[in-house]
Amino acid sequence: MHAVATDLDQWIGARWDELDTPAPVIDLNVMEANIARQQETCDRLGLRFRPHIKTHKVPAIAMQQRAAGAQGITTQKTTEAQVFVEAGFDDLIVAVPAIGARKTARLCDLAERATVHAVVDSAEAARGIAQAASVRGVQIGLLIEVDSNAGRAGVQSGEEALSLARCIGDLPGVTLDGLFWYPSREDALPRIAEARAALDGANIPIRVMSGGGTGADALSAKAGATEHRSGTYVFNDMTCVRRGVATLDQCALTVVTTVVSTAVPGFVTVDGGSKTFTNDAPPSGDEGYGQVKDRPGLTLARMNEEHGIVACGAGESRPALGEKLRIIPNHACGCVNLHDVLYGLRDGVVESVWPIAARGTLQ
Amino acid sequence: MHAVATDLDQWIGARWDELDTPAPVIDLNVMEANIARQQETCDRLGLRFRPHIKTHKVPAIAMQQRAAGAQGITTQKTTEAQVFVEAGFDDLIVAVPAIGARKTARLCDLAERATVHAVVDSAEAARGIAQAASVRGVQIGLLIEVDSNAGRAGVQSGEEALSLARCIGDLPGVTLDGLFWYPSREDALPRIAEARAALDGANIPIRVMSGGGTGADALSAKAGATEHRSGTYVFNDMTCVRRGVATLDQCALTVVTTVVSTAVPGFVTVDGGSKTFTNDAPPSGDEGYGQVKDRPGLTLARMNEEHGIVACGAGESRPALGEKLRIIPNHACGCVNLHDVLYGLRDGVVESVWPIAARGTLQ
Repeated sequence: MHAVATDLDQWIGARWDELDTPAPVIDLNVMEANIARQQETCDRLGLRFRPHIKTHKVPAIAMQQRAAGAQGITTQKTTEAQVFVEAGFDDLIVAVPAIGARKTARLCDLAERATVHAVVDSAEAARGIAQAASVRGVQIGLLIEVDSNAGRAGVQSGEEALSLARCIGDLPGVTLDGLFWYPSREDALPRIAEARAALDGANIPIRVMSGGGTGADALSAKAGATEHRSGTYVFNDMTCVRRGVATLDQCALTVVTTVVSTAVPGFVTVDGGSKTFTNDAPPSGDEGYGQVKDRPGLTLARMNEEHGIVACGAGESRPALGEKLRIIPNHACGCVNLHDVLYGLRDGVVESVWPIAARGTLQ
Repeated sequence: MHAVATDLDQWIGARWDELDTPAPVIDLNVMEANIARQQETCDRLGLRFRPHIKTHKVPAIAMQQRAAGAQGITTQKTTEAQVFVEAGFDDLIVAVPAIGARKTARLCDLAERATVHAVVDSAEAARGIAQAASVRGVQIGLLIEVDSNAGRAGVQSGEEALSLARCIGDLPGVTLDGLFWYPSREDALPRIAEARAALDGANIPIRVMSGGGTGADALSAKAGATEHRSGTYVFNDMTCVRRGVATLDQCALTVVTTVVSTAVPGFVTVDGGSKTFTNDAPPSGDEGYGQVKDRPGLTLARMNEEHGIVACGAGESRPALGEKLRIIPNHACGCVNLHDVLYGLRDGVVESVWPIAARGTLQ
């Protein structure tokens, strides 16, 4: 729809500070190390790794995750899944329950071309999918979501899991694949175990136990998962750093901005605000909305929609008007979702330019 | 870039609850009343009205604002301005300082086709624009930004305003049009008056005094503005309601969502989260991130990226799985910016489908 999507290859070979700003850029060396490290962790834990593409929404990056050993992908939405099936991915989870005829029809479209696992937490949702699938003559695997104390979806007890599993067992067009939860948390282990025990006690076979969350792989293993899903690990962000699940050196995503005003004492203003970074993960105290790469004294302290106000800490030289600053955002997934194009840098030079193909899609 | 952008006219005549979700929709009767009321207010105050298109990013809506009496438009970014010049708008402000050769080149492109006012707060910015304009043989009007205590940009004193005005007076390709500030605030009146007095004292002619902010029109008049800019008023949002500058009935924008889970006691979950609504304007206390239209007991209490968790207050019946809920967001501008298409409803039926043409553009 946008002029920005035309002639992207013109940027190949440009240095990061030559890009038109604001521009989200990926340090490819860091991203590739993140991909390899996460795969090794899952291999060591005996977990199949199924990356969540919500973070990047770029098929070319998912192909790198697959080449490193990932098996299948996770998507949030049926329309994201469409983009990735179109790009050749043939095994995927759609994580948000697909409710309503339009979404179940899209699940069936996907199931004609790929192995589709849909997540449900109600008999109505399972019946809706089963009805669409049986009319269309496709088969869709269902995962029962267990609420791992995120409080947003999922059955609340072993009894509810068993009741839903029995309902699914009676339906055409769908099969019960197993259990699903997000995130893998210590305090959720008892409920996951209870759900599993209820199904085992009724001799209902479970092939898949699917846990998730960046930094939560060991907890997935502890919960008895067969597979682990995570998304943010591919780029990491300031929230990961503050949570202690990534270091600053492991943050692959930054946004290149330009200093457009130095008029206000103590601050400089860059050409990206909440429409560039999101207002995600508001700070506790004075942590800010992002941090300038390699200059820890420069913090994205406040934002308006298109203005980012960078505080200059003591001992940090004040950036000049026109200077380019690379800012690590609080939340990689939300930040990428605001842009149309992602630039891949090798040693500071653009090597890849990717349309963010699954951005802006419906559920 | 996206499949969603094809065949938009299929939705004309659909009822709001037939739309694929999540879907941002505009109540056209409410929007048209907002446009008329704001224009009347500015007319009464003797202010030229220059709407800010950052809220909707849709040329067809700006045409309605113009038809109601608006003179010129305000944009944040050179690339937004490109979309609107392409659509036939011929008088515009670019509000974020244009720093660097790419942005000043775009200003010159615009100036070949329209009357362009660029906002500056430094001699370097003015010189960059002047150099580009004189090489290209175009004329660009400059507005000196005065910091009205937003602390993001703008000269800090009358002395700085005068120094910058004198610098501009010596430059080719640019003319000094006047002063600019955002927002119009009571506590900023002394600095605006000081800047104006400094220029008057030096016999520097000022044609334009440009103030802004939804609900701040009277303060613009009080500050001696010749024109007023505002954007959010066209749709309004929960932040406007809480600030007392709009009523719930004056909120034109809602997002149609579907209830996808009712598994968690006390809540229902809809198919839109922070990637649908933004995390903008975090609540003080328990105000939440949005409110269900016509059902004040239902509040968007928490979000993940694609999950919206709606709290069901006492006395409010619990929505059913599959039910469609229209949610008024906290921040209209940020919310619209997340979507590709906006639906205009007349009495609940789709009358217009607009691509959000200037979304996702560079600065």
